[in-house]
Amino acid sequence: MSAATTAAGSACSPRTIQVELSANPYPVVIGEGVLARLGEQVRELGFKAGTKVLVVTNPDVDTHYGDVVLASLRTAGLAAEQLVIEAGEDQKTPATVALIHEAAFRQRLERGSLIVALGGGVVGDMAGFAAATWLRGIAVVQVPTTLLAMVDAAIGGKTGVNHPGGKNLIGAFHQPRLVLIDPATLATLPQREFRAGMAEVIKYGVIGDPELFSALEAAGDLSTIEAVGPALLQTLLERSAAAKARVVAADEREGGLRAILNYGHTLGHVVETLCGYGTFLHGEAVAIGMVAAGEIALAMGLWTPADQARQRALVVAAGLPQRWPDLDGAAVLACLQGDKKVRDGQVRFVLPTAIGSVEIRSDVSAETILAALERLP
Amino acid sequence: MSAATTAAGSACSPRTIQVELSANPYPVVIGEGVLARLGEQVRELGFKAGTKVLVVTNPDVDTHYGDVVLASLRTAGLAAEQLVIEAGEDQKTPATVALIHEAAFRQRLERGSLIVALGGGVVGDMAGFAAATWLRGIAVVQVPTTLLAMVDAAIGGKTGVNHPGGKNLIGAFHQPRLVLIDPATLATLPQREFRAGMAEVIKYGVIGDPELFSALEAAGDLSTIEAVGPALLQTLLERSAAAKARVVAADEREGGLRAILNYGHTLGHVVETLCGYGTFLHGEAVAIGMVAAGEIALAMGLWTPADQARQRALVVAAGLPQRWPDLDGAAVLACLQGDKKVRDGQVRFVLPTAIGSVEIRSDVSAETILAALERLP
Ligand SMILES: NC(=O)c1ccc[n+]([C@@H]2O[C@H](COP(=O)([O-])OP(=O)(O)OC[C@H]3O[C@@H](n4cnc5c(N)ncnc54)[C@H](O)[C@@H]3O)[C@@H](O)[C@H]2O)c1
Ligand SMILES: NC(=O)c1ccc[n+]([C@@H]2O[C@H](COP(=O)([O-])OP(=O)(O)OC[C@H]3O[C@@H](n4cnc5c(N)ncnc54)[C@H](O)[C@@H]3O)[C@@H](O)[C@H]2O)c1
Ligand SMILES: [Zn+2]
Ligand SMILES: [Zn+2]
Repeated sequence: MSAATTAAGSACSPRTIQVELSANPYPVVIGEGVLARLGEQVRELGFKAGTKVLVVTNPDVDTHYGDVVLASLRTAGLAAEQLVIEAGEDQKTPATVALIHEAAFRQRLERGSLIVALGGGVVGDMAGFAAATWLRGIAVVQVPTTLLAMVDAAIGGKTGVNHPGGKNLIGAFHQPRLVLIDPATLATLPQREFRAGMAEVIKYGVIGDPELFSALEAAGDLSTIEAVGPALLQTLLERSAAAKARVVAADEREGGLRAILNYGHTLGHVVETLCGYGTFLHGEAVAIGMVAAGEIALAMGLWTPADQARQRALVVAAGLPQRWPDLDGAAVLACLQGDKKVRDGQVRFVLPTAIGSVEIRSDVSAETILAALERLP
Repeated sequence: MSAATTAAGSACSPRTIQVELSANPYPVVIGEGVLARLGEQVRELGFKAGTKVLVVTNPDVDTHYGDVVLASLRTAGLAAEQLVIEAGEDQKTPATVALIHEAAFRQRLERGSLIVALGGGVVGDMAGFAAATWLRGIAVVQVPTTLLAMVDAAIGGKTGVNHPGGKNLIGAFHQPRLVLIDPATLATLPQREFRAGMAEVIKYGVIGDPELFSALEAAGDLSTIEAVGPALLQTLLERSAAAKARVVAADEREGGLRAILNYGHTLGHVVETLCGYGTFLHGEAVAIGMVAAGEIALAMGLWTPADQARQRALVVAAGLPQRWPDLDGAAVLACLQGDKKVRDGQVRFVLPTAIGSVEIRSDVSAETILAALERLP
């Protein structure tokens, strides 16, 4: 599949990418207008008329898309109800999951019932976790409505909530039965959220898809949905979803390969933590983290100044931050040590070696890290 | 493996039964004194010296076995800490799981760390669920100390907690890495709990192991651990564990065959619910439920009065109740309908057809049920 072909056929007919898991493969369906076909799609999975469906969403998303989704499900003969929860990052807690369980109980969801997560990554992670833990696991369909959730959070089965001590410490792996992506829903997404999602798209380019990277470069301006346009949007959704699907299929439970998805995230996590959650959006921190990881790779002679410049240019084109914030070196190292990606006390970095390939390294010294961060503009 | 051979070799050397799951097979080790070898056994699973281990137990069990377990783990070089929680059935809640998560956070458990559940089914279900949901799943070793947990709860990966609306509504499938059963720990178990566990042992006999059933019959008195004696105890633990292991291996996620483990449980559940939780122990209700299911099977011509008499005699020999309580028929039917084992509105009964075999039937009419219950002494 070349980026060009994909873009050409994309504006009208949805594309399907299969997440090839041995036990429970599932489709990611991407296309303008598919939201209104959710009901049919669910029926095609084998859910019969009368199946109870609980749609979990939040007020922002409900305003724009709640009615379409409910109508689609009900028209298809499904017994759909809706729960609207507050879903800021600070509401991503066991207490909110308990609210979803309450609704599941009120609606008497059974083993064969379904939860639909309609919203960003916060809604997806919580509704997914509630589904993972209701009756020891009922089906979930992810309907992501942020760019970040479309290209990342909704695919791969990671679900969970935060603990006062850290993000996503409580959770489960629970693969969805279907991921339904309607690019049209991005029209209402705040611009800053759109850009944050673009950081993950750039990440897929760097870690494994040079064609995607080039397609993004060719666009020039990636900072708004209008600038990107429907054809490139469909392409980048498809290629990003395909990239995530490949990695997930190769490593469902994050034993090895899946670690490459953490590109930009180790140092991004440091930025999020030390600057205080809320200062930067996750995608913004990832953008900063990718540029910083690139600098470490440069210092280690793993990749070239030219590639680092290309990466940086794309981050800028997406309207994302790339400056390393003024952080205390000792605090940075302490934060890296506390990260759950640490294995045997060694920090594992995903470092770029070319546009389209990365390496996992556990031999990056504290000096190398701090020196590289110092050198960042 | 015949019951006789097993019993002969049992008193000194532990036996291992493998739960043959394709993705994550694990051993059930059964033998007098194995508790003191937990540390070694954990190391044999591949956990390195220095691995963090959180032992979760409750006061009763801690008093008798906490020190032995901690000492064994620490002697083996593991960084073991202990959390003692209250673990009555009414504490089997998300709030108690949150306490385990707190301890996991304080000890900074990592992906490679381990939780050990030391206690009855309540501790096992909660510690198992906490492990299932910490960092999206860390390893758990089950060390059951009640007969019920040894032959049932600890094997098979069902974990969870209660919801105000019903038992075990919140949970996950999470297989242990090892189940370690030391029959010696039953010495301190209250007699009533011992008998309740025996109901599940009888269940295995009826649903699939006529040899086990005969071995139990031969013993005469099954009502105390002294009456049973160490040889038969080892045998029944092995055969029960093997029975559970077979069913779990054939149906890890309770899609089909595993339903036969619900023998006696559908009507037992009615007894538990309508008499109020706490009136009967679970195993007592199961004993009543098995006799009642036998009566339905009789009414449907599925099995014989002689077999029903043999089943009833074993229940009596174990000091278990078998009288159907005086319950309102309409309430019984309503309760059956509310059971989560209902599929498409039809109650599915596991009915005995001979000592050692059962059938799943969805065609049992309300009249048949009520008439059979009426006929019970
Ligand atoms: N499970 C995973 O694999 C995974 C991967 C990455 C991130 N995450 C998680 O995802 C979360 C972040 O997700 P996010 O970036 O989607 O943020 P989010 O869910 O907080 O959504 C961002 C904001 O956009 C609003 N919104 C969503 N869709 C909209 C739309 N179409 N129109 C208008 N407003 C809309 C939301 O109400 C919210 O205010 C984090 O909690 C992170 O941990 C999970
Ligand atoms: N996960 C499963 O597959 C599964 C299967 C069956 C039952 N269960 C669950 O198991 C629970 C019941 O388990 P249970 O019957 O073991 O009861 P329990 O865990 O409540 O233990 C019974 C009592 O015995 C005490 N105790 C335990 N071991 C002891 C020992 N060796 N010496 C002295 N006292 C001891 C406990 O403190 C408790 O007071 C229920 O919550 C049920 O839902 C789960
Ligand atoms: Zn991310
Ligand atoms: Zn039981």
